[in-house]
Amino acid sequence: MADQTKFTLTEDRIPTHWVNLLPDLPGDPLPPLNPGTMQPAGPDDLTPIFPMAIIGQEVSGDPEVEIPEPVRDVYRLWRPTPLYRAHRLERELDTPAHIYYKYEGVSPAGSHKPNSAVAQAYANKEAGITRLSTETGAGQWGSALALASSLFGLECVVYMVGASYDQKPYRRAMMESWGASVIRSPSDSTEAGRSQASHPTGSLGIAISEAVEVAAGDEGTNYALGSVLNHVCLHQTVIGQEAMAQMEMAGEEPDVIVGCVGGGSNFAGLTFPFVRRVLRDGANTRFLAAEPAACPTLTRGAYRYDFGDTSGLTPLLPMYTLGHDFVPPPLHAGGLRYHGDAPLVCALVHSGLVEARAYGQNDAFAAALQFARTQGIIPAPEAAHAVRATIDEALSAREAGEHRTILLGLSGHGHFDLSAYDAYLAGTLEDPELSTEDMEAALSRLPDAPAIAF
Amino acid sequence: MADQTKFTLTEDRIPTHWVNLLPDLPGDPLPPLNPGTMQPAGPDDLTPIFPMAIIGQEVSGDPEVEIPEPVRDVYRLWRPTPLYRAHRLERELDTPAHIYYKYEGVSPAGSHKPNSAVAQAYANKEAGITRLSTETGAGQWGSALALASSLFGLECVVYMVGASYDQKPYRRAMMESWGASVIRSPSDSTEAGRSQASHPTGSLGIAISEAVEVAAGDEGTNYALGSVLNHVCLHQTVIGQEAMAQMEMAGEEPDVIVGCVGGGSNFAGLTFPFVRRVLRDGANTRFLAAEPAACPTLTRGAYRYDFGDTSGLTPLLPMYTLGHDFVPPPLHAGGLRYHGDAPLVCALVHSGLVEARAYGQNDAFAAALQFARTQGIIPAPEAAHAVRATIDEALSAREAGEHRTILLGLSGHGHFDLSAYDAYLAGTLEDPELSTEDMEAALSRLPDAPAIAF
Repeated sequence: MADQTKFTLTEDRIPTHWVNLLPDLPGDPLPPLNPGTMQPAGPDDLTPIFPMAIIGQEVSGDPEVEIPEPVRDVYRLWRPTPLYRAHRLERELDTPAHIYYKYEGVSPAGSHKPNSAVAQAYANKEAGITRLSTETGAGQWGSALALASSLFGLECVVYMVGASYDQKPYRRAMMESWGASVIRSPSDSTEAGRSQASHPTGSLGIAISEAVEVAAGDEGTNYALGSVLNHVCLHQTVIGQEAMAQMEMAGEEPDVIVGCVGGGSNFAGLTFPFVRRVLRDGANTRFLAAEPAACPTLTRGAYRYDFGDTSGLTPLLPMYTLGHDFVPPPLHAGGLRYHGDAPLVCALVHSGLVEARAYGQNDAFAAALQFARTQGIIPAPEAAHAVRATIDEALSAREAGEHRTILLGLSGHGHFDLSAYDAYLAGTLEDPELSTEDMEAALSRLPDAPAIAF
Repeated sequence: MADQTKFTLTEDRIPTHWVNLLPDLPGDPLPPLNPGTMQPAGPDDLTPIFPMAIIGQEVSGDPEVEIPEPVRDVYRLWRPTPLYRAHRLERELDTPAHIYYKYEGVSPAGSHKPNSAVAQAYANKEAGITRLSTETGAGQWGSALALASSLFGLECVVYMVGASYDQKPYRRAMMESWGASVIRSPSDSTEAGRSQASHPTGSLGIAISEAVEVAAGDEGTNYALGSVLNHVCLHQTVIGQEAMAQMEMAGEEPDVIVGCVGGGSNFAGLTFPFVRRVLRDGANTRFLAAEPAACPTLTRGAYRYDFGDTSGLTPLLPMYTLGHDFVPPPLHAGGLRYHGDAPLVCALVHSGLVEARAYGQNDAFAAALQFARTQGIIPAPEAAHAVRATIDEALSAREAGEHRTILLGLSGHGHFDLSAYDAYLAGTLEDPELSTEDMEAALSRLPDAPAIAF
């Protein structure tokens, strides 16, 4: 039996459509709300910062959305991405489980993020926009948008969360190599940044506020979000569609599909095509969302309408939230440091279709190191949480003495996170503590919006 | 016309054999010499540091050498690697040339180096060896051997050139993540290191001396070299064989093939299968070796017998050399900081089959940035030299108004070299000066070996 098995798709197998889960969800979708009127937000609420093509994708009721050919064309730079069977890891764990992993780190930016960045850059270019503003946590999304902007000839300005900016100078250099301007957040270049000067490590919520403020105030500039919204989840479904074809090549059906969740786009991208199959055909698949214990949105947040950013510039979104002004403790998995989660993912968690679990930072890195030493790839800290969940699933299959086919979404590599591995190996990596007091205080400041009916 | 075209091979197309150029070279091969007797070095000269299987590959006269199945099995983790057509770069250069690039950065270590590291780790494991020692310049080879050692359950100790050790802490952390011990060279743990304390930035030659000394003095420890020797060039020929199949898919023949040369293994791996075709069928292909102006072995070195390391522990090798104790100035392309080059590559340069050109560091980074902003991938500084040569070829095709098909070997990514890109963008990257005086002094200290007959 081969020790390594890779399931390779040729480039003609790059999906032609994105999968839109919205029309398959049971019940009417919960609309975003205009915070002024508490009425459903319409396209007009979004035109100052998004092009119409993106707004159309955000609210589309079509089960499939065609991928523009220039977007597929750029996807060819790294797609289809490989799917592997992790024979060595299975042997190391002495488990009857079969572990497969879909690896998105082969993109030039090193994660799944360019799947959406390229789609958004193209839509903005077509709409005559000349500059994009955005935020980035660990740097994965900022790198992706910097790359996509350079490929479509757009300017790009990135507000980078302070904690990551300080920890990851090479991420900044990468974005600048692709021509982007990178600004440490909170900055003094925006009202939103100046008002948060007392949180010097920053947060995704603050950085989003800064980037939205810049886009709203300049006609030639639009904003691009790297996660959370429907259209971002939509763009990422190329991952799950390819994985489904590759699992067919492997001749197996996943019993459980595992991904990490920060804003939810990676998890959505991997799982939504499979979730739709469950909803349509009643297939028997479990979905497992891995998040950090220091920012436990899905496992400990409230299911409520809340702002997507810290300053309250966005429409209200129906989601699990720790409170829009909750600032999570510094964490190497910067991409998971977000107070909310994608409304579509939250709806699935709330319905019981998706199970969420929270993991400590050291537990995640222990799993990542085990993965690196058996399968070669050094996972990003975000993906490390999903690796932890996968290994735990494989170990519980061993204990139960049962076969289990696990599909792991390995969203990116950890080449820019080796200082964290260094700290882990030296025994100095912290498990940052969640401040329950801060979280409860932030939850008490949730906007006075209608409760979510269910 | 598609903007991006990728030529994907499925895993069953991973080569089953390595290509051995030795029997096809015109004339008798020049043997390595025992420096004590000045007689051809035999297997006995190598058994203290290499397993017999590797020695057999080093001296094999077979035109093909079968790849052991466990080695092919690990190759599946990243092979076959993609070959792309660089449409965007062509448009940016407004050239009639067609540019293809074979990308080896998809390996977990980020370069072509694991192709040989895996083969060597396997051969040593089979021979009962428990520990490997080696040197690394930029960190690419050390990472590759750390990865391969972890996959085959071997200990690994890496002597890392001082200049790189200081510039690239994340490369060290990467090797340690795979379980290797990393020591800054020159170190005080070896005689060779202590004797070179006056060169604190180190060099590949010094680090080789340290690693060889450790292996020679311990029965369970062998040495693994990342370039130069025949068996390393042999292992890398998987690159060129795949590229040949992919160029057939593209329906084109390369007119010129470009690679960077440090010790020569990347260049050999890409070109040897094509060189053999030229030797056998008289095909009309040019081969272009790109090296740094600060370490101009092929363009300004002497074609003589010289030691492979600084302290004179290795057999004498017939090669272009700047003198075994020449210490090149610090350079971000650490993998190109070597005083010699693979004897097989040198023989091709000397015969006129391969043309060598030297490039300054800033010229190389300018080309690399142009590549990154059109094709997405950020090249390693070593590969940047080949990108420079490729762009110059494409521009000269434009001036001549002629079609030209160029195949570029993109040996690795620059994720661990972003401080150099940072410096280039800030305008503070240096073009380190070659000390002609030091070079001439080192050349005057060449060992008193027979001149190479030709």
